[in-house]
Amino acid sequence: MATSRCNREWYTSCGGDIDNESSCFKILHERSGHGARVGELRTGHGCVQTPVFMPVGSQATVKSLAPGDLRGIGSDIILCNAYHLYLRPGVEIVEEAGGLHGFMAWDRAILTDSGGFQVFSLAPLRQIDDDGVTFRSHIDGSEHRLTPEKAILNQEGLGADIIMVLDDVPSGTADGPRVLEAVERTHRWAERCLAAQRRSNQLLFAIVQGGRDLDLRRLSARTLSSLDFPGYAIGGLSVGESKASMYSVLEETVPLLPSGRPRYLMGVGSPEDLVEGVWYGVDMFDCVLPTRVARNGAVYTRDGRRNVRHADFKHQFGPLDPECDCYTCRTFSAAYVHHLFKCEELLAYRLATIHNLRFMHRLMGDMREAISQGTFAAFRDEFHARYRPTDETVRLAQRRRHRVTSTWQADDSER
Amino acid sequence: MATSRCNREWYTSCGGDIDNESSCFKILHERSGHGARVGELRTGHGCVQTPVFMPVGSQATVKSLAPGDLRGIGSDIILCNAYHLYLRPGVEIVEEAGGLHGFMAWDRAILTDSGGFQVFSLAPLRQIDDDGVTFRSHIDGSEHRLTPEKAILNQEGLGADIIMVLDDVPSGTADGPRVLEAVERTHRWAERCLAAQRRSNQLLFAIVQGGRDLDLRRLSARTLSSLDFPGYAIGGLSVGESKASMYSVLEETVPLLPSGRPRYLMGVGSPEDLVEGVWYGVDMFDCVLPTRVARNGAVYTRDGRRNVRHADFKHQFGPLDPECDCYTCRTFSAAYVHHLFKCEELLAYRLATIHNLRFMHRLMGDMREAISQGTFAAFRDEFHARYRPTDETVRLAQRRRHRVTSTWQADDSER
Repeated sequence: MATSRCNREWYTSCGGDIDNESSCFKILHERSGHGARVGELRTGHGCVQTPVFMPVGSQATVKSLAPGDLRGIGSDIILCNAYHLYLRPGVEIVEEAGGLHGFMAWDRAILTDSGGFQVFSLAPLRQIDDDGVTFRSHIDGSEHRLTPEKAILNQEGLGADIIMVLDDVPSGTADGPRVLEAVERTHRWAERCLAAQRRSNQLLFAIVQGGRDLDLRRLSARTLSSLDFPGYAIGGLSVGESKASMYSVLEETVPLLPSGRPRYLMGVGSPEDLVEGVWYGVDMFDCVLPTRVARNGAVYTRDGRRNVRHADFKHQFGPLDPECDCYTCRTFSAAYVHHLFKCEELLAYRLATIHNLRFMHRLMGDMREAISQGTFAAFRDEFHARYRPTDETVRLAQRRRHRVTSTWQADDSER
Repeated sequence: MATSRCNREWYTSCGGDIDNESSCFKILHERSGHGARVGELRTGHGCVQTPVFMPVGSQATVKSLAPGDLRGIGSDIILCNAYHLYLRPGVEIVEEAGGLHGFMAWDRAILTDSGGFQVFSLAPLRQIDDDGVTFRSHIDGSEHRLTPEKAILNQEGLGADIIMVLDDVPSGTADGPRVLEAVERTHRWAERCLAAQRRSNQLLFAIVQGGRDLDLRRLSARTLSSLDFPGYAIGGLSVGESKASMYSVLEETVPLLPSGRPRYLMGVGSPEDLVEGVWYGVDMFDCVLPTRVARNGAVYTRDGRRNVRHADFKHQFGPLDPECDCYTCRTFSAAYVHHLFKCEELLAYRLATIHNLRFMHRLMGDMREAISQGTFAAFRDEFHARYRPTDETVRLAQRRRHRVTSTWQADDSER
């Protein structure tokens, strides 16, 4: 079934090996002792080396960056959001512009999220039933209806290389019957999405749900695996639960997914979560974190996050991070970036965003290299020994604060 | 005297002709019938073809652009502001970073304004005397003192290629004794600036003042011309007077300035004002207008300004301006730029800024070409026949409104 979605035309578009076109995903290296693996995902717009971090461009733009900036970072795939684009500018506008690739002038791979998460987290007054969900736009209050079939139709119009099923996403604090209901509905909707798909050049990924309930997570992973999707996502995480809880879910869920298919952990995350996710066998990640915190002046280094607004940077005439090879660090001093932030100059946001995305890109590359060399366990230990994560209390407080930040600073999505 | 400031080292740095190093400015074409001329200004960071429009980067950044964007536009010279940079980050920081060129990673020419205009227009509680001016910072209220000697010292620290004298700038509504006082003080301060200059690789320009009083303007132009500066600016215009009044001042003033020296009209302007300024013999311009209005969605075309936020653009899948060759127009549809503005996405401001600055750059290039070909009178007629300027009442209302716009949208300077 997956094979049929991975046709010769777009398999070969990135130099794929015709004799081995049975899958769009190929595992190049995996080692015993942990789940981590190195792979290659073939799309209609180039090959993506995994594990990969996908920058988020919810509204068909990675905030503050142009396509050339993303190419400079090395990004091969980005994420856009079908909920946002459906509401504004509307699917038909994007379609008329030649799909998302034409609209935003990005010629590499794109994944669209179906909008399930946003409908359940952003839209007011939503009403859910077995057929679909009715919600009001967070922009103008207008009423809309989303069903699994409509989610596929929208994403076929947007034209991303990878598209997602519509899922029922309970809130982070939900439990018991609501979580079970959401899991079962997500499964029924996944089947309807498969049946609704018309285009043959888009990979449709299923989404495992189940909250923090490990039994439900296992049930969800097994049920969806039997449906033979070209890829599998793990959703409903990073919504306020502890890191320990998230890691348990990964540990229990990932091994139940088909090993030959890409695994995507949605909405995660921080550098330390990427390392752990890869350890458990995740291949793809997306998160607004590196771009969002960049716009507040927080820049990643292998020692942890630092804030360039801090007075320490005023006289630092070397780069933000001496170990970094990004455009920002190659071109400007930390003192200059500090000055731009102090003056609230628009260039500040772009320079910090480039740095953080390049940090993520290099982190993924370093992990791929370590996995290939068989040294990933040591890499993981060294990473955690050095990297000082943001304090968990601070992290959860920041999440709450970000929800009320002004439009131009916030991503309009928690993913 | 000017010759001594135009030394062999930086004359040759842009491939200057050693046998003709007596001036940093060379007129390549001029025609009878009007004052317009084509010239070449040699600086320590490359040659500048005149007439030229200089993008404004008050705080060591042209708002929303990186140096590569400016190179893509074709800019050979930009303006920074000594008042802003003195207050933040401070001259010593810029100096330690290798001067403005090093600080902002811009390897072409820079002109710094002395700060006179900003002290008189932005700073609260200023007290002026013959020695200098005491003012409070518009950022933190701290008290500062600026004298002609300090203005030169600051600008030598910042290290621009062209620096400006400190001038006494009366308000646009001042008249009578205050304007006379300002003119006479500006002349005394110009002499003190000349005497204070220590660095030999910066061109110091004088500034003609005199408000709308043509007698005072003539007096100022004659007095300063006798001091033999390497260049001459006309200040105190575009501060709320009518266009007719500004053009009269140009008509009376420009012919009194030494013809072999570059002439710079400060803080101007709109496309129609550039065409008129060139007609009267101006060689250099700067203005925040094209960058400021870009951030509000206004884009220039040869027919006039249009606002990309307008619903007309929602379905326009061609470029913003079919006649434009800028990065934005070559890469994105008007529909995409419209979408970015509607979503208040940061990329919007950059794309519109690039378009407007490229429009200005091409307009200047087209004028140089027409002057060289001897067809500038016809060019000017055709330009005005087609270009629909912003209504003057609207224009003056916009000026007032811009003064209260939020920090990130406003340039912090009216120049």
